[in-house]
Amino acid sequence: LFAPTLLAIYYGEDKALFAFGLTIFIAMIVGSILTKAEPEDKKIYGREGFVIVALAWISMSFFGAMPFFFSGAIEGPVNCFFETVSGFTTTGASILTEIEGLPKSILFWRSFTHWIGGMGILVFMLAIMPTVDERSMHLMRAEAPGPLVGKLVPKVKSTAKLLYEMYIILTLLEIFLLILGGMPVFDSLVNTFSTAGTGGFAIKNASIAAYENPYFEYVITVFMFLFSVNFNLYYFLLVKDVKNIFKNEELRYFIAIIIGAIGIITLNILSLYPTFESAFRHAAFQVLAIISTTGFATANFDVWPELSKTLLVILMIVGACGGSTGGGLKVSRLILLLKMAGLEIRRIVHPRSVNIIKLDGHKVDEETIRGVGGFIIVYLFLTMGSFLLISLNNFDFTTSLTSVLSCLGNVGPGLARVGPIENYSLFSDFSKLVLCFNMLLGRLEIFPIIMLFAPAVWKRSYM
Amino acid sequence: LFAPTLLAIYYGEDKALFAFGLTIFIAMIVGSILTKAEPEDKKIYGREGFVIVALAWISMSFFGAMPFFFSGAIEGPVNCFFETVSGFTTTGASILTEIEGLPKSILFWRSFTHWIGGMGILVFMLAIMPTVDERSMHLMRAEAPGPLVGKLVPKVKSTAKLLYEMYIILTLLEIFLLILGGMPVFDSLVNTFSTAGTGGFAIKNASIAAYENPYFEYVITVFMFLFSVNFNLYYFLLVKDVKNIFKNEELRYFIAIIIGAIGIITLNILSLYPTFESAFRHAAFQVLAIISTTGFATANFDVWPELSKTLLVILMIVGACGGSTGGGLKVSRLILLLKMAGLEIRRIVHPRSVNIIKLDGHKVDEETIRGVGGFIIVYLFLTMGSFLLISLNNFDFTTSLTSVLSCLGNVGPGLARVGPIENYSLFSDFSKLVLCFNMLLGRLEIFPIIMLFAPAVWKRSYM
Ligand SMILES: [K+]
Ligand SMILES: [K+]
Repeated sequence: LFAPTLLAIYYGEDKALFAFGLTIFIAMIVGSILTKAEPEDKKIYGREGFVIVALAWISMSFFGAMPFFFSGAIEGPVNCFFETVSGFTTTGASILTEIEGLPKSILFWRSFTHWIGGMGILVFMLAIMPTVDERSMHLMRAEAPGPLVGKLVPKVKSTAKLLYEMYIILTLLEIFLLILGGMPVFDSLVNTFSTAGTGGFAIKNASIAAYENPYFEYVITVFMFLFSVNFNLYYFLLVKDVKNIFKNEELRYFIAIIIGAIGIITLNILSLYPTFESAFRHAAFQVLAIISTTGFATANFDVWPELSKTLLVILMIVGACGGSTGGGLKVSRLILLLKMAGLEIRRIVHPRSVNIIKLDGHKVDEETIRGVGGFIIVYLFLTMGSFLLISLNNFDFTTSLTSVLSCLGNVGPGLARVGPIENYSLFSDFSKLVLCFNMLLGRLEIFPIIMLFAPAVWKRSYM
Repeated sequence: LFAPTLLAIYYGEDKALFAFGLTIFIAMIVGSILTKAEPEDKKIYGREGFVIVALAWISMSFFGAMPFFFSGAIEGPVNCFFETVSGFTTTGASILTEIEGLPKSILFWRSFTHWIGGMGILVFMLAIMPTVDERSMHLMRAEAPGPLVGKLVPKVKSTAKLLYEMYIILTLLEIFLLILGGMPVFDSLVNTFSTAGTGGFAIKNASIAAYENPYFEYVITVFMFLFSVNFNLYYFLLVKDVKNIFKNEELRYFIAIIIGAIGIITLNILSLYPTFESAFRHAAFQVLAIISTTGFATANFDVWPELSKTLLVILMIVGACGGSTGGGLKVSRLILLLKMAGLEIRRIVHPRSVNIIKLDGHKVDEETIRGVGGFIIVYLFLTMGSFLLISLNNFDFTTSLTSVLSCLGNVGPGLARVGPIENYSLFSDFSKLVLCFNMLLGRLEIFPIIMLFAPAVWKRSYM
């Protein structure tokens, strides 16, 4: 919060300055009360880890919303909360119709929530907090996206530090490359924060399309890719074990999906663009923007042919790699689901065939397989339920369904009324809260948020 | 085929008569060749059972399409095939824009395919063929819809006979009640065939709405319910064991879903209709028409509020009870999925909790649970893949998605361009074949059709 405060002073934005000051004051008071109320039982189990993570994200969103509310930049508490949840969950769905008129410090804070959220508030907190003990392990488990957390570095603290460093290096690199290409420094910072968190908040109404600069588009395309692969792979890069990187099945599938999707969409939209290069550039940018769940736009893909739109909606569901800042189902889960489907078909052809699923050459244990199966089922029920609640808004089928899929996948834009040149301002407050719930569910891999509603969690833990 | 031939003679429909005659002639020749080519190895395993069922349905559809083709009633071989697949799979999706002008014998045959398909061609064949031996067991397994085949009557033959008798009794009852209400005899027969198979082909362009008769609507609503519950339950009714009927969890969930959906939709559409009764009647009819996967229409639900439409689309996916003539995922599968989701959440709250799923008070074995999990995953991939292929047609998102869901669930109508007052004539031939594939997949519970594409099946069985 201090960075935007300084910015507010620098740009002389009085109202915003007041808002940031007030927020810091309130946060400090609540923070000091909470610190004193620290529970005596220092051990935190998986269950409590889930609950703490969920509560942390929700309360961060409340505090994070204050600058928007106090500065009057966004009208109405629900809108402020929506924008902040969208920020911290790195969804990038906005209720703002007019972005360019906002104070720079507010825009900075808005994109900065992506950067904080991107790495996960708690990995972030772990890395900067001096007192990290064994209880972090459980927090880590709830936080890490994707079904498989690579056990690369034994100590959580050093893992967190490593990921954090890698995150900062990539961030600095992108800022540098954007400035090099001539983007204003402020824009470079803000757009990089949004890319790094795979968030997608832009500071132009037309998103990245506003710059009309192919160089920026290619740079951002590459970084959307870099921020959506498993960060553990960068560890192999550091120890120069490149062979191990290409052994990674998730990465191979991810690259194959991206190349396939770019190919199909380029051919599908060829007639809409003057040159092959521009069709390819827009296809590549949009495929990466959606599969990385960043949600930036250089083209209004809502007017593309249906094949491309359907493909993008499917990529929205697929999402990025586990262990990245991206959202969605995660490619590793998709691979396991594909293998489970294949196994089921094999079992009918050869009833006595062996039931082993391998990933990266290692057998995946029953626990993980059951977990992925359970995840997809819960995901389906949540999608259906949310779709039903959102349809109370009486928007068309496409809008209702893609808004739910987009928020659950932390993507941002959907189709029709939530398309890339539209926003979420038209929804009712109730729908906005349902979508906030979806964004939190998606970001925390569903279960931590559901835990909050499990009576057993509250009964047995705090009695 | 003989019934429509007689009708053609009776109504003096020359062209249709020629078509039926030619079809019977061809079918007889091919039939006699196939009988002589009977394989020497009489034992049929599960795998071969699947393949036989799949091939039987596809070849039935080819022969069944001949009357449409030879009579010139439907233009183009793909359209004829589509209409017949839609008939035998009891989907009821039509490519006809103008139904009322067709010869009566052709209309009769069209709805009669529903009646044949409804009970399953092979249960049908089992019941009328005199030589039934132990190999029927495997055929039965591939045929029976839903994950759980109740082991009520030990002998397959007598089960088949019982189901068949029950089917005929209900059919006669509905015909009787419709005639009693003043519906023309021909219409009563044809509409009953479509209800019994939960098919949905109507002989009026406006479906059941054309009669503007609430009595007919209520009668058909009730029979859509009766044909979409597990037929094994009628066995309990015959032996007067009513207690066992209400113990059936699937039935209880099914009734609860129906009541809930009718309640919500009635309130949601109340302002569109003059009286509460008419809103209730249309809601009840449409809920039953969709969840039973019959697909009849008394109202153009495509213009209903979004909440009702979303709910109907979800019911389309849910489908009827296992062991009925209805399609969809089946309520019993849905219950197991719900319980699996619940279990997964419980396992996170209490990591050491017991992992038992019960249905009707009995533990469901691991095999079945894994089967249901595998089924839903394969179902999802097929939906996504088909959606992508259908979007090549460049129809809007809603049309593409609901046409796939409707055909996979053997429902018939979807939303937008495949809404209840629309039809499937606008799709390209390629899309129609993809949808035929979906209808067959849905009707045969996916796996028998997939078996046809498994190289291992062909290599090892027939070498
Ligand atoms: K995003
Ligand atoms: K149907």
